[in-house]
Amino acid sequence: MYQKFFRELEDLPDKETVPLNEVIDHLVFNDSGLIPVITQDVETKDVLMMAWMNKAAIEKTLSEGRMTYWSRSRNEFWTKGESSGNTQELINMSFDCDGDAVLCQVNQSGPACHTLRPNCFYLKVDNKNNRVTVIGNRG
Amino acid sequence: MYQKFFRELEDLPDKETVPLNEVIDHLVFNDSGLIPVITQDVETKDVLMMAWMNKAAIEKTLSEGRMTYWSRSRNEFWTKGESSGNTQELINMSFDCDGDAVLCQVNQSGPACHTLRPNCFYLKVDNKNNRVTVIGNRG
Repeated sequence: MYQKFFRELEDLPDKETVPLNEVIDHLVFNDSGLIPVITQDVETKDVLMMAWMNKAAIEKTLSEGRMTYWSRSRNEFWTKGESSGNTQELINMSFDCDGDAVLCQVNQSGPACHTLRPNCFYLKVDNKNNRVTVIGNRG
Repeated sequence: MYQKFFRELEDLPDKETVPLNEVIDHLVFNDSGLIPVITQDVETKDVLMMAWMNKAAIEKTLSEGRMTYWSRSRNEFWTKGESSGNTQELINMSFDCDGDAVLCQVNQSGPACHTLRPNCFYLKVDNKNNRVTVIGNRG
């Protein structure tokens, strides 16, 4: 899914900068206006969850320093931890080479998963035995 | 995006197992039959890239032990490193709490990014200065 804008950034040398708003304007949002966001614990480097943002959620997250996704089920902003208290402070945000994914490193308060497990990827494939193992208790 | 199948898994205790094929059958694929896949270096824990798999690509990756995505631009299997040699050996695969994302930990040979940078997330937001900084040389 290459596009000219991101293709041209490829040739820039280390530490070169470009305007943030230009990059955001060229991100590849899907038909629903959303882009996938990977959220990683900045200290443990565990991948905590994957969710979605629209352009406004990206801008809100950057301006407020707290992770705000777009809830596809409720069709509204979803500021992580607003009800649970398990907030995510944004530390770093990056975009990928073809502008269709966002990586955010965060300081996670409490468990990231709504099941109260530390992260959402708690269903681990046991390939040898053709099983999936639950990792961690519900809390 | 909750569904009954994954909702019921939530209550299982630590180390309980369920059949792999049942979980795969209930994964949430989008209208194009694809699910987002996050690929992480198993040693450094860096997030290397995000791409997509269909059900057949998940099964191929598990049976062959090498990451095979579905190329949305070429509309065909995309076994990572087939042309570049920069293959990804699958070490761990996990699914998230609502079955709509896959996390794979890999042994990455060479750079993960087609730009020859170590990973695809080389466009880092400098929030304070409203810029995006290129991280790493093209190689």
